[in-house]
Amino acid sequence: MSALFMRQVSPRFFSAPVLNRTAEDVSTMLRPALCVRNFSGLAPGMPEEKKESSDVKQSNKAIDSYWGVAPSTVTKEDGSAWKWNCFRPWETYNADLSIDVKKHHNPVKFMDKFAYWTVQSLKVPTTLLFQTVAAVPGMVGGMLLHLKSLRKFEQSGGWIKALLEEAENERMHLMTFLELAKPQWYERALVIAVQGVFFNAYFLAYLASPKLAHRIVGYLEEEAVISYTEFLKDLDNGTMENVPAPAIAIDYWRLPANSTLRDVVMVIRADEAHHRDLNHYASDIQCQGHELKDAPAPIGYH
Amino acid sequence: MSALFMRQVSPRFFSAPVLNRTAEDVSTMLRPALCVRNFSGLAPGMPEEKKESSDVKQSNKAIDSYWGVAPSTVTKEDGSAWKWNCFRPWETYNADLSIDVKKHHNPVKFMDKFAYWTVQSLKVPTTLLFQTVAAVPGMVGGMLLHLKSLRKFEQSGGWIKALLEEAENERMHLMTFLELAKPQWYERALVIAVQGVFFNAYFLAYLASPKLAHRIVGYLEEEAVISYTEFLKDLDNGTMENVPAPAIAIDYWRLPANSTLRDVVMVIRADEAHHRDLNHYASDIQCQGHELKDAPAPIGYH
Repeated sequence: MSALFMRQVSPRFFSAPVLNRTAEDVSTMLRPALCVRNFSGLAPGMPEEKKESSDVKQSNKAIDSYWGVAPSTVTKEDGSAWKWNCFRPWETYNADLSIDVKKHHNPVKFMDKFAYWTVQSLKVPTTLLFQTVAAVPGMVGGMLLHLKSLRKFEQSGGWIKALLEEAENERMHLMTFLELAKPQWYERALVIAVQGVFFNAYFLAYLASPKLAHRIVGYLEEEAVISYTEFLKDLDNGTMENVPAPAIAIDYWRLPANSTLRDVVMVIRADEAHHRDLNHYASDIQCQGHELKDAPAPIGYH
Repeated sequence: MSALFMRQVSPRFFSAPVLNRTAEDVSTMLRPALCVRNFSGLAPGMPEEKKESSDVKQSNKAIDSYWGVAPSTVTKEDGSAWKWNCFRPWETYNADLSIDVKKHHNPVKFMDKFAYWTVQSLKVPTTLLFQTVAAVPGMVGGMLLHLKSLRKFEQSGGWIKALLEEAENERMHLMTFLELAKPQWYERALVIAVQGVFFNAYFLAYLASPKLAHRIVGYLEEEAVISYTEFLKDLDNGTMENVPAPAIAIDYWRLPANSTLRDVVMVIRADEAHHRDLNHYASDIQCQGHELKDAPAPIGYH
């Protein structure tokens, strides 16, 4: 496993203060002197009542700046402030650790075999790189299904949401690992290159054959499950240090306060197993000649 | 307003049975005889225990088909079955009708004026067409922010979620209107053409200048608010028939059971006003020289 995980950053990678700023702080911080001139003498953020001389049939309240749009304040059950912007308390969940981590889709048709060997040939070296790739397919698939739903004026069966959730979930895995390991310059360079190639390749694959695309992701997730099983072995035999779980993981997966990296890897592996099943299922539905919208998407674990 | 809304389809456009199917039904429906041959004599859906002879260090349970992945059963508060796949009860909300529908961003800089006149020149004739266009920017923006978060290894500030929610919300507006009016063949053709052009144009605009892109959407939403205000006038003076609200709208916006189209237009207009503020805010943040992740996204109404 990459030496990346051997180097942990002890203070949290992302400073908490950024996330705890109030609307007041934001207004003050984001008000450079230069902008005052743009607002015709008004203090930025102050709404200006004026009538627009236009063909608009109602009088509009013209505003120069939307500063002060404060995010809603959210607290945890114990009353402390909620620290995260990209997920809220109601979006946290308990992972289903009983999910079968040994399931493997038997490559039956040519398409299955093509997908399987594509994944085998692309096995990626580091978890951070894998995470940035893993978060792309759900977003591409979700977006293409969204566009399809719009132009065909039809319902989605919940699949847009399921795929976008998969993408966000994978991104949360990345955000979690970033609390533990800082990416090196060469990893940053590699990720930028890989994203450009992979995004376009997967986009085209999804347009050409959604069932192939989902089959590829299914096999990709199988590899992820295998990788995390290896990661667990490394933690158990001491090859990797079993550090305390980062706060973002404890809040996101509702883990006990004294959880460790091992607990985090367990829940992440359960997530990957769910994605594996979701994508193989999506491929199977279409392999059977039906559209995704004909079979409701499994939301959450099954 | 388009004559489309004068023609209402009395039975619901999308038959309820599709959404109420159980996993059993799905398995039976999606099991054409042809597929049996692919599964080497096994009944589809039956997991096959077998060991893969590969370099995988653990024994895998190979499965040929993932049928029977049942979606979780969800019930409403009164115990009746939840009808919808693309949104769940916890994703419904009460619209904030007190939101200011008269706000207008004063075009100050050249970029603002460019955005404003782009929107003015593209005013769209029918609500259905507008809805299919309106649901694109949030998805494109959300996706590009998602990719950026991955390759730069940085947090999002909640903006990915905010934009994806905007797209899904606009799509729900479309799903709602589809309960009331069936699109004609020329509208379907137009939508397909427009989506191709608009998606690519907005994608490039967002890459080139996210603040311009958000400003355009802000002005687009201002027009939407104006349109819905006109729609309300048409309903009030009898030009448009004030029919009962469709079930999907009652569940999504938590409306009273005896709600009408007018109530639906009120909540939809409130949504558009929120999107207007969200996008103008996103543009302002970047106009001030900061990145979106520096200012938490307003989730829900403000």
